[in-house]
Amino acid sequence: MKDIKVIAFDADDTLWVNEPYFREAEEKFSNLLEDFLPHHSVQKELFKTEMDNLALYGYGVKSFMLSMVETIGRITDEKADIKLVNKAVNLGRELLNKPVEILDGVEKVLAALNGGYRLVMATKGDLLDQERKLIKSGLEKHFHHIEIMSDKKVSDYAKLLKHLDCKPEHFLMIGNSVKSDIIPVLELGGFAIHVPYHTTWAYEKVDIKIDDPRFFEAESIERIIDFIS
Amino acid sequence: MKDIKVIAFDADDTLWVNEPYFREAEEKFSNLLEDFLPHHSVQKELFKTEMDNLALYGYGVKSFMLSMVETIGRITDEKADIKLVNKAVNLGRELLNKPVEILDGVEKVLAALNGGYRLVMATKGDLLDQERKLIKSGLEKHFHHIEIMSDKKVSDYAKLLKHLDCKPEHFLMIGNSVKSDIIPVLELGGFAIHVPYHTTWAYEKVDIKIDDPRFFEAESIERIIDFIS
Repeated sequence: MKDIKVIAFDADDTLWVNEPYFREAEEKFSNLLEDFLPHHSVQKELFKTEMDNLALYGYGVKSFMLSMVETIGRITDEKADIKLVNKAVNLGRELLNKPVEILDGVEKVLAALNGGYRLVMATKGDLLDQERKLIKSGLEKHFHHIEIMSDKKVSDYAKLLKHLDCKPEHFLMIGNSVKSDIIPVLELGGFAIHVPYHTTWAYEKVDIKIDDPRFFEAESIERIIDFIS
Repeated sequence: MKDIKVIAFDADDTLWVNEPYFREAEEKFSNLLEDFLPHHSVQKELFKTEMDNLALYGYGVKSFMLSMVETIGRITDEKADIKLVNKAVNLGRELLNKPVEILDGVEKVLAALNGGYRLVMATKGDLLDQERKLIKSGLEKHFHHIEIMSDKKVSDYAKLLKHLDCKPEHFLMIGNSVKSDIIPVLELGGFAIHVPYHTTWAYEKVDIKIDDPRFFEAESIERIIDFIS
């Protein structure tokens, strides 16, 4: 990894806490519907709705909110009290208003790499929500460029690289999702370091063993320095 | 306007039809609630909800959908049948699935300017929805850069100009909203051409007479050529 010029960081669950907040919201959502279905079935139904809506709504909290609303209608055969809908919407509003909790080691690593590399934040989700989290985090000063992507497929990274005027062999992506942060970048010919997080959204889970000389696994974000320098 | 290097176009109601689709959805939404309130009051309440949610949700169809859902709860004092909520959500889904209707003259103008200038599309709204509309429109090939912005305030344009490495005096913005496309760009020292559209969202309406040597008004997008060349 001698020729890296651009280092891109995923944001949710790489720079700051995200998935545990969603899990908490899902728990509360299941509580709302426990008169109709057991918790695990509610969560299964919600996930099904989210997957059905992904192509139309994209990622992020507002999509999650709309999927909760739709799931209430379906699970209850349109018999739920509308108060449940408002409660679900409020769970989403709580998510949007959460404070940003930066993960351990992130500030130290960004400060250490800043100057030697062009640092990029590359995340998917709601445009405004991710911008707001970045501002709340105070991490904006470290980044040369912020890219909020509608998806993280190979074609999306290809567009990002073109935009940054960076060849794949000079590009390193760091993130917690093998599916979104690692596989598409390796496929393009870039480098990738996986920094696992304890909680992963079912959608992001993959059961693949990666065997690629441009792939590395770091047990924490502070350890990525070992691979780069 | 001799030194223009970058020409940026707003998208909704500048390149393609947008606001009339929202108006149609608002009409249908008022129909859903006519047992509770007269049409104009429903629309007033919906607009109030949208304004209250703007800072938290941002612009776009998903925000509009969540505001419809919330308005049903408030107008009916949480007594509405949940079926109304699902009907409102479906109005939003219809909006997301609308075909893209390119406005008269747009393709001709873009083709004429392409080559002589860096053309940019600068729009606010849902990230995925605006990307999808651009792809459906077939206009992507004309643009050097696409910027989907969470807002169109002076600071947002300043960021865009920095990103494009373009001085304000080399920048021309074209759009239908005096509030979002014209005033902030003039304030930065850029050029702006207003191309009015017959339908304007209440939020975008301003009652200001602009007296600025860098401001022009074109009666149709085809006439912008008169000012540029």
